[in-house]
Amino acid sequence: MTRKKLNIGLIGSGFMGQAHADAYRRAALLYRNLKAEPILHTFADATPELAAEGASRFGFLHSTHDWKKLVTNPEIDLVDITTPNSMHFEMAMAAIEAGKHVYCEKPLTVNLEDAKALSEAAKKHGVKTMVGFNNIKTPSALLAKQLIDRGDIGQITRFRGWFDQGFFNDSDMPWSWRCSRKLAGTGSLGDLGAHVISVAQFLMGPIESVLGQEQTFFKTRPAPGDGSGYKASADLNAKRLDVENEDQFQSLVQFKNGAGGTIESSRIAAGKVFGVYWEISGTEGTIIMDGERFNELKIVRYQDDKADRGFKTVYAGSQVEQFNGFFGFDFAGGGLGYFDVKVIEIYDLIQGIMDSSSCFPDFDFGYENQKIIDAMAQSVSEKKRIFIKG
Amino acid sequence: MTRKKLNIGLIGSGFMGQAHADAYRRAALLYRNLKAEPILHTFADATPELAAEGASRFGFLHSTHDWKKLVTNPEIDLVDITTPNSMHFEMAMAAIEAGKHVYCEKPLTVNLEDAKALSEAAKKHGVKTMVGFNNIKTPSALLAKQLIDRGDIGQITRFRGWFDQGFFNDSDMPWSWRCSRKLAGTGSLGDLGAHVISVAQFLMGPIESVLGQEQTFFKTRPAPGDGSGYKASADLNAKRLDVENEDQFQSLVQFKNGAGGTIESSRIAAGKVFGVYWEISGTEGTIIMDGERFNELKIVRYQDDKADRGFKTVYAGSQVEQFNGFFGFDFAGGGLGYFDVKVIEIYDLIQGIMDSSSCFPDFDFGYENQKIIDAMAQSVSEKKRIFIKG
Amino acid sequence: MTRKKLNIGLIGSGFMGQAHADAYRRAALLYRNLKAEPILHTFADATPELAAEGASRFGFLHSTHDWKKLVTNPEIDLVDITTPNSMHFEMAMAAIEAGKHVYCEKPLTVNLEDAKALSEAAKKHGVKTMVGFNNIKTPSALLAKQLIDRGDIGQITRFRGWFDQGFFNDSDMPWSWRCSRKLAGTGSLGDLGAHVISVAQFLMGPIESVLGQEQTFFKTRPAPGDGSGYKASADLNAKRLDVENEDQFQSLVQFKNGAGGTIESSRIAAGKVFGVYWEISGTEGTIIMDGERFNELKIVRYQDDKADRGFKTVYAGSQVEQFNGFFGFDFAGGGLGYFDVKVIEIYDLIQGIMDSSSCFPDFDFGYENQKIIDAMAQSVSEKKRIFIKG
Amino acid sequence: MTRKKLNIGLIGSGFMGQAHADAYRRAALLYRNLKAEPILHTFADATPELAAEGASRFGFLHSTHDWKKLVTNPEIDLVDITTPNSMHFEMAMAAIEAGKHVYCEKPLTVNLEDAKALSEAAKKHGVKTMVGFNNIKTPSALLAKQLIDRGDIGQITRFRGWFDQGFFNDSDMPWSWRCSRKLAGTGSLGDLGAHVISVAQFLMGPIESVLGQEQTFFKTRPAPGDGSGYKASADLNAKRLDVENEDQFQSLVQFKNGAGGTIESSRIAAGKVFGVYWEISGTEGTIIMDGERFNELKIVRYQDDKADRGFKTVYAGSQVEQFNGFFGFDFAGGGLGYFDVKVIEIYDLIQGIMDSSSCFPDFDFGYENQKIIDAMAQSVSEKKRIFIKG
Repeated sequence: MTRKKLNIGLIGSGFMGQAHADAYRRAALLYRNLKAEPILHTFADATPELAAEGASRFGFLHSTHDWKKLVTNPEIDLVDITTPNSMHFEMAMAAIEAGKHVYCEKPLTVNLEDAKALSEAAKKHGVKTMVGFNNIKTPSALLAKQLIDRGDIGQITRFRGWFDQGFFNDSDMPWSWRCSRKLAGTGSLGDLGAHVISVAQFLMGPIESVLGQEQTFFKTRPAPGDGSGYKASADLNAKRLDVENEDQFQSLVQFKNGAGGTIESSRIAAGKVFGVYWEISGTEGTIIMDGERFNELKIVRYQDDKADRGFKTVYAGSQVEQFNGFFGFDFAGGGLGYFDVKVIEIYDLIQGIMDSSSCFPDFDFGYENQKIIDAMAQSVSEKKRIFIKG
Repeated sequence: MTRKKLNIGLIGSGFMGQAHADAYRRAALLYRNLKAEPILHTFADATPELAAEGASRFGFLHSTHDWKKLVTNPEIDLVDITTPNSMHFEMAMAAIEAGKHVYCEKPLTVNLEDAKALSEAAKKHGVKTMVGFNNIKTPSALLAKQLIDRGDIGQITRFRGWFDQGFFNDSDMPWSWRCSRKLAGTGSLGDLGAHVISVAQFLMGPIESVLGQEQTFFKTRPAPGDGSGYKASADLNAKRLDVENEDQFQSLVQFKNGAGGTIESSRIAAGKVFGVYWEISGTEGTIIMDGERFNELKIVRYQDDKADRGFKTVYAGSQVEQFNGFFGFDFAGGGLGYFDVKVIEIYDLIQGIMDSSSCFPDFDFGYENQKIIDAMAQSVSEKKRIFIKG
Repeated sequence: MTRKKLNIGLIGSGFMGQAHADAYRRAALLYRNLKAEPILHTFADATPELAAEGASRFGFLHSTHDWKKLVTNPEIDLVDITTPNSMHFEMAMAAIEAGKHVYCEKPLTVNLEDAKALSEAAKKHGVKTMVGFNNIKTPSALLAKQLIDRGDIGQITRFRGWFDQGFFNDSDMPWSWRCSRKLAGTGSLGDLGAHVISVAQFLMGPIESVLGQEQTFFKTRPAPGDGSGYKASADLNAKRLDVENEDQFQSLVQFKNGAGGTIESSRIAAGKVFGVYWEISGTEGTIIMDGERFNELKIVRYQDDKADRGFKTVYAGSQVEQFNGFFGFDFAGGGLGYFDVKVIEIYDLIQGIMDSSSCFPDFDFGYENQKIIDAMAQSVSEKKRIFIKG
Repeated sequence: MTRKKLNIGLIGSGFMGQAHADAYRRAALLYRNLKAEPILHTFADATPELAAEGASRFGFLHSTHDWKKLVTNPEIDLVDITTPNSMHFEMAMAAIEAGKHVYCEKPLTVNLEDAKALSEAAKKHGVKTMVGFNNIKTPSALLAKQLIDRGDIGQITRFRGWFDQGFFNDSDMPWSWRCSRKLAGTGSLGDLGAHVISVAQFLMGPIESVLGQEQTFFKTRPAPGDGSGYKASADLNAKRLDVENEDQFQSLVQFKNGAGGTIESSRIAAGKVFGVYWEISGTEGTIIMDGERFNELKIVRYQDDKADRGFKTVYAGSQVEQFNGFFGFDFAGGGLGYFDVKVIEIYDLIQGIMDSSSCFPDFDFGYENQKIIDAMAQSVSEKKRIFIKG
């Protein structure tokens, strides 16, 4: 039996471009039930040389320096966008209008109107879409979803979530696009908090209102020298540029289901490497995802005998369909890593495209995510509670 | 060399009364440098029989059913109040006016005016006072204070703290004084959040403004049958009474030092037993007190070599003066328990009384604590940020 | 209702003497169901001055510098021995022969014959005895016993246990009695391993055979200057004395019930403070007591649904009778400390004395413990497996 | 610049065959400094159909049902063997004799003579070899090696290591090759203990002598039905076959460097999923690799100030060369998973082949590993300490 083919066009050669290229090939290898064979068809980058080099390195058949040719190429089925955030909108819109399915890294766009336009265009053109919110594709998040839907923790009462990193906790770390209102929008909120919001959307459902506050401690940073992103370095005598958005953010959240909660983010949390945490309580139990241990949950359930109620460490393994591509037997403790989660994303993406079902999380989810971020930012600037519009 | 004597008058025979009686005797035994010998002089309870029985059980020399006689007895040096919260004010005020030093369990009072009046009266009468905020007398809190004062974590950027318990996460748990506005004031905020606020006062300094929200999921509870407090039970057919205050509370906090943060509390956090957590970040490091492990801190410091920066588990032992009464050598991992922390309180209380220095935390601290709780409650009802008055 | 009185005679003013004095008074206060009131009757120490000073500090009515008078005083019911190990035998034997109940700190004696003689004498004279093995009086050990007896983990298959401390991991730490064959017998085995053996005796039952090996890395130490025990310091130019026993010890153990296992100890385990660990597996589950967290167990049980089998953190609280003296409600996470465990010992001791039942662990248990230590030491010197005699 | 090509011939289509195929492609993608491009040249499996299907699925250019043709094909540079253990010897020997480099999964062979013969043949023919001991390719093991070599923990005093799994802790789990002396040799020792031994070889150096004991609790198992390995199921009425090797194993180990230690393994450790643990103490510190957290170490060092000595959680990231293929920036907490460790193996393999240096761990290492396992088994059967021959 031969699989259908799905021709991929990938734009962007950074860390995430490489991670996607890796994940397509691995999904094809690991998941025997994958409904289409992803073909690495065309790779686009800024110059012909870069494009050719990337195509060779990533294993693509063709390359182009003109992403517009890629998105309109009739052979391409799926356009995958891993370029800087501010370029997402134009590329995704062109792909949708060309009738392509689109997979875009988070955040979907840098402003709300663009996200809305993409979400509506995707519906109008009947294409399938996905945004790369990897925190809701971990084995632990997938297992938590099952438990909550099954009623294991009863009526939900509270959400507590944060994403802390410490990479910017140094006044000599150079200025980057992350510090620019225009290129990045908010600071730690959009960069890191967006992931926590995605978990809240996935596991808690709609947010009714938000109240936020923020602080910035490193108000200028030296202009960047070599490298970029996390790898940037700076001449310490370089001119210092203004940091235009917040280092850390805290918010109160009220959910439509009646639950309350907090969502926080920081890029200057000293010593935190990949500091994601979320905790959901209900009338019948509590679920905690602690730190980087995304192969496991801590679960307490009131179904259990009171005499030995306690938090149990449960590995997400064969309870989660997507896990079975990796091991096929219960070896959950052995553990998936960061890159494996991207393979799960690709699996869900391809199954969604080939199915009658939709992909998840789609552009509508990305738009909702952006709506919440915008409301949080608005709450900070207007100093009041903002209600999310329906 | 013989120690001076300090005659104690204790009011209240509950769990906390017993804990105090235990702690006086132990402080005298464990701390050779204790500046006065606490004499268990007079014990007061509601009836002559109860008073006599408590005096016998707790080891007091005398007993009375009339607390007013106790507070005015010229032989008494220190009045210790462990009665229900709503009785604190009258007793403490009478004791102050009689020129006694006063040790009062938290919360100082159930309303702000009373707390203020007590704080002012204590200053006017020149007596020493202390409020039983035991969360700032743990070895970990005392060590954290040292580290922060020494500058180990640089400029403080954020506080995150909560106190979660699950004892009320059951709709059949009977109504208690904790559910009454009149007897308890706020719900989880005043009962549990007050402790987190005390930690924030101790380690972070003054709070500038707060923004709170709250939720109540168990809106009625059966009238209590036998027992009271944590030990109460109810007939499930009992009449259901209204719960008048919040089950859970979340807040945003802005500190005078520029740091931001969150403070939360819950009495319905499923599965949490003694769920205290606090985390303080600064430009040079982060300190975490995680769960019930109050003998230790998790510390990361940027002084350390970057190549192996990481959270270190540090036991609070002989770095902390108060620890040395217990072991006299470094055996921190062996661990102090809940009751030992009360002994530290008594040690600090007696040293403060006998010293030229003041006791800590005094009634002024308790008044500040109440001011913050009130501002948080006001923020909930007025749906806006409240600035704490100077 | 008034309790019977039980007159206590305590010998020894060190850390452990103080801990016992503290624990008698606390047991009387905390346990309302205590079957006798312990009266701190007579305290003995080496000189009249020391004895008087200790009696005053510890709250005893009388003092003596002649322990023989104490053990034969007809008013004394219970003799409590906290002197250096090499003095235990003579004192305990004299007390037994005087018809007193005897409570002796571990180890019972420094050689096997003495332990045997004491065990036999106690039976002959019909007195009750107890040895201070505090590791089997922790809430976690008491809970583990319940679970195992109830069959929760099925047929036992393996024991893994160690006690690691790092206090001697420094070649400049002075020589002490712990280094002497005559005063201490074995090194880390008898000092620390004895506790692990006590846990194995309590939870696993009889040991059939043992195979040991040992290492010593610090072969000499400077003669001690001021202080003693953990608090000793030395002049670094002091003469270096020979260390006569092992720094670390490892053994294979075969239990009568068919299970296998390992028991280890070290006094030079760098960085370990109070490093006790034990783990028991059976055909239906595993129980782990990890580190200093003696208020909790990690438990996995095959009774639980396979889909979320995992290690659960269970606090030992009201499931354990002895816990209820402390809190009276489920507050296990709040935690008992090292000193509270001594109170549990005293409770079990007094209940055992007043009951028709025996005390546990008695001198027979202490003799068994010594038998196993001796067999382990014999295995090292004879380089072969040693079978424990029945 | 174009890389040299390295033609791979892979034998075996099981879980491990797939993991290797995945890892070659990923190593080529992730490591820009990889010294040769691995070409998936020929895949061999038992029948032409299986071979063709595997080649297609794994991405190989050619296929064959005759592994002998693969190993003698002049185009093949590296033969990769992932077949059942009992077939390793014949295939590896043929490959060596054909002058190929050989990469073989662990264990190298099922008996010692074969391992010796392979090790000698590889030297004689001057080919490079590697055995798939993945536990010494984790970021944590690589970091521990650096620390120990640098002297961070001083003179090594003790090793403690185990590998526990619970997959066989059920009498209805069917019999498999793992239960057969002929097909597997020892039981949990060779299957799981071999990994711990590899860590000891890597981090501790040569073992001088061993003393072992073992237990088997599940003495028969039902004949297997469908599936095999971890995925097998059985008809519960199936005939029961004898289990010929041990369920669990414990040993005492004496190292050439003077350190002592224990090595244990179990396949019936209830509730353990991937229960690897190792701990190394020295005169200047201790290193712990706890559970499945192979991205991190717990480290204590006496270089640190005594006042806050404590175990520090250190992520292995850019300190480890091999990590940098994955992230290129410090994102260690994000974490590598099981499959990523195989990519590190392939990286080290290819660099070793292309270099003047040798590969690590080579067949000599595998032979040493087998020598230790054999000595442990011999110790069990002869009931005495066995000295490892030089």
